[in-house]
Amino acid sequence: MSELRLPAPAPRHLLSIRDLDRSDVERVLDTARSLGATLDREVKKLPTLRGKTVVNLFYESSTRTLSSFELAAKRLSADTMSVRSAGSSVDKGESLKDTALTLAAYDPDVMVVRHPSIGAPALVAQYTGAHVVNAGDGKHQHPTQALLDLYTLRESLGRLEGRTVAIVGDVLHSRVARSLVQALGIVGAHALLVAPPTLLPRGIEALGCEVSTDIGAIGDADAIYVLRMQAERMGPGEAFVPSLREYRALYAVTPERVLSGQVVMHPGPMNRGVEIDPRVADSAAALVTDQVRAGLVVRMAVLYDLVVQRPVRDSGQGEGARENREVPSALTGAPEVA
Amino acid sequence: MSELRLPAPAPRHLLSIRDLDRSDVERVLDTARSLGATLDREVKKLPTLRGKTVVNLFYESSTRTLSSFELAAKRLSADTMSVRSAGSSVDKGESLKDTALTLAAYDPDVMVVRHPSIGAPALVAQYTGAHVVNAGDGKHQHPTQALLDLYTLRESLGRLEGRTVAIVGDVLHSRVARSLVQALGIVGAHALLVAPPTLLPRGIEALGCEVSTDIGAIGDADAIYVLRMQAERMGPGEAFVPSLREYRALYAVTPERVLSGQVVMHPGPMNRGVEIDPRVADSAAALVTDQVRAGLVVRMAVLYDLVVQRPVRDSGQGEGARENREVPSALTGAPEVA
Amino acid sequence: MSELRLPAPAPRHLLSIRDLDRSDVERVLDTARSLGATLDREVKKLPTLRGKTVVNLFYESSTRTLSSFELAAKRLSADTMSVRSAGSSVDKGESLKDTALTLAAYDPDVMVVRHPSIGAPALVAQYTGAHVVNAGDGKHQHPTQALLDLYTLRESLGRLEGRTVAIVGDVLHSRVARSLVQALGIVGAHALLVAPPTLLPRGIEALGCEVSTDIGAIGDADAIYVLRMQAERMGPGEAFVPSLREYRALYAVTPERVLSGQVVMHPGPMNRGVEIDPRVADSAAALVTDQVRAGLVVRMAVLYDLVVQRPVRDSGQGEGARENREVPSALTGAPEVA
Repeated sequence: MSELRLPAPAPRHLLSIRDLDRSDVERVLDTARSLGATLDREVKKLPTLRGKTVVNLFYESSTRTLSSFELAAKRLSADTMSVRSAGSSVDKGESLKDTALTLAAYDPDVMVVRHPSIGAPALVAQYTGAHVVNAGDGKHQHPTQALLDLYTLRESLGRLEGRTVAIVGDVLHSRVARSLVQALGIVGAHALLVAPPTLLPRGIEALGCEVSTDIGAIGDADAIYVLRMQAERMGPGEAFVPSLREYRALYAVTPERVLSGQVVMHPGPMNRGVEIDPRVADSAAALVTDQVRAGLVVRMAVLYDLVVQRPVRDSGQGEGARENREVPSALTGAPEVA
Repeated sequence: MSELRLPAPAPRHLLSIRDLDRSDVERVLDTARSLGATLDREVKKLPTLRGKTVVNLFYESSTRTLSSFELAAKRLSADTMSVRSAGSSVDKGESLKDTALTLAAYDPDVMVVRHPSIGAPALVAQYTGAHVVNAGDGKHQHPTQALLDLYTLRESLGRLEGRTVAIVGDVLHSRVARSLVQALGIVGAHALLVAPPTLLPRGIEALGCEVSTDIGAIGDADAIYVLRMQAERMGPGEAFVPSLREYRALYAVTPERVLSGQVVMHPGPMNRGVEIDPRVADSAAALVTDQVRAGLVVRMAVLYDLVVQRPVRDSGQGEGARENREVPSALTGAPEVA
Repeated sequence: MSELRLPAPAPRHLLSIRDLDRSDVERVLDTARSLGATLDREVKKLPTLRGKTVVNLFYESSTRTLSSFELAAKRLSADTMSVRSAGSSVDKGESLKDTALTLAAYDPDVMVVRHPSIGAPALVAQYTGAHVVNAGDGKHQHPTQALLDLYTLRESLGRLEGRTVAIVGDVLHSRVARSLVQALGIVGAHALLVAPPTLLPRGIEALGCEVSTDIGAIGDADAIYVLRMQAERMGPGEAFVPSLREYRALYAVTPERVLSGQVVMHPGPMNRGVEIDPRVADSAAALVTDQVRAGLVVRMAVLYDLVVQRPVRDSGQGEGARENREVPSALTGAPEVA
């Protein structure tokens, strides 16, 4: 009799996309798709997390990400509490540790943390019994962004394995790029980074991607992922790029550079006319609003996965898989009606 | 057999008070009254918009209006998401179009938009499948303010037709004045604008109102509507008014200038001692808190009207009217109890 | 037949800890304990205040206190509306009276008010039919903080009567200290203030406490309550304390100064290394996170007590007490399930 290989328990936190293996990613994306189906209903609210509390602790302003997490929690009937650095105890010099301990005392089910310092969400995870979700830490990780990008790609391209995604622009300052490269690796897709030499971190190939400084290289990709270029990166002074005009000429994603059949993505907010040509942004190839919509269902799925999904510990052959298959159908059950 | 004249379908958006005809206005005010009756109950919440999402997109700070919309949505059991310019992607230079597209991707049922630029809510309406409500755009329109003012007037005066409202003060910078003048015209009431010449826009009579620079003219009105005077309008520099003292002497609404039987309104926040004398503000003639309360029920009614009220398309004689009459009684049905 | 002594009606507001007598305090703490038990459930939400509205009016930023009130209201299923001075009509110069009247027009059930001026919540109480809770006014009162401190002490020490609490640090600027001294008096416990002479208000003994400038005096206490030292109080300039180094040497609560069996409290946010040694803050003696957790259940209890608890007006012997005893058991009934 061959050895039974049990699935590893699902991780308690989502601190890095590397916390997930391929089956974790697929389970979350499948859950997101099931949740997406419930959003077409008249009543979009599900009772799944009723009586649960989600705390959002944001040390960087990001309406886009915060709104997405808040709405995801509300759609699942959770209560939310959002603490931003402006106007919070943070301003009184309280340490992250004490803020974490304070919020943990409310006994939340999930804490979503965004912070300019690498590792801040992991630190919070040490001081709370809640599930912690990293919503962006410094240049490090943004795992729910990577998941929503995978979701968008899968919905658009049909499958992820063997696909190539060209990631174009300011890779150096981008946690989005870092998380996405790793996420593509997990699902068997390829990442190709395209950027000026000054915006490519040294040794980035170690993450398992190819690198090019020639925008023409994007022609080989199924999807072109355009990174946001921050104004302050462009000259004069300590600039990484000589000028806006030069960056545009060499690296902007323009209609001429996008082949028929390629899709274009951007994490937003876009600088139209800088890293992306408005004609591309408004074309049928652009999946930008699909990404926003994916952000909602993927974050719902992550909350659901952490709070409700039980790690499968001593199932027999295939039972874990069957249970996972059943979860989405449970999700599509009767919505909450008063 | 005479031609059947079918009611026009109710508009999908509330961008300008001019989107409404008299029957639309009356339907909204009747709905507001029915909703008002439910607020006297022990449990004030109605399940009407459960599972619906209302997004508030505010590019101007206005606690008063934002709170009113948020509370209106919550009382109807809708989920709310409020995005303000401070701390939002707006600060990263994202265009209104892209912000609209992003928020529209969440598939909200209603988007409430306040913006310093004229036409911004109409622009948002182009990029979303949601119903859009203008909560103030530049000097242009503030239709829910006009509706709550009509509601307050009707509750106080019994009927609107044939009544005269004197609107006093900074007409030039006031979207409140512009919307109210048009609203009064829709219901067959008269508007009289009273202001210094520098605060009267040229050609304002074209809206269908009378104009006077003499405060004594308010004696003819059933209601005196006092506009807020912004400090920055008063000298020195590019002032529209030589001094606070002079403005007060000539145009402040004082007890001496209010006749017995007249009511006094103000959109708030009041500058006590500038455009309105504190003795007037605190008198029984003042309807200022009635206006705030009206704001809540009228905004509930507007949300209800847009989301739930079906445009009557092929009804026979009178059926549309009957259906409308029935709606409020449906609203007064059993409140939500857990 | 002896005269029947009826219990006084419970106060309509919580403006000062002195609004409460001993039986009021005990009722609130007992309710808080019952509510605390419900928080261990899978579904933490109670339907108690469904359809009620709690308005939070905060003129001082305090994420800690505001979050606690918001979450308390949500756990009881109330709707919340939070108005902060930044971005509110307050910025347009509206008076507190008019803001109170405006918010009162929404007919909230409770208004929670925090303001830098002494007496502001009492002023608000004049203009609203809502129950008003003082969430901190100037250097005056912070009654829910005092109640949560009593709750934490009672849970830790078993009983309050006869206990001694040493309150250490900046008594002069602390409404927390003032409220706590009075609260301890109400329940028959002793307060001992320990601070440099410059941080002890003259005549503070009149509140019914002992005073010492010697840190050694804390050895007599059952609990050591460490106050927050604000950086701006420490030299140079108009300093109350010559230097941080000197303050630490003379008054910091260090492991050497805490006896076995003593507990240590702090209202937060802590300045680790200033008024409290990190080794004390992280020790088993520290009840800081217990205080945060207590803040939630005590605020739930205060909201419950004001809104639901009926003042007992014409009960016979003991009936009031019995009714009070029954309330908590009602609270522990079936939680809300959709």
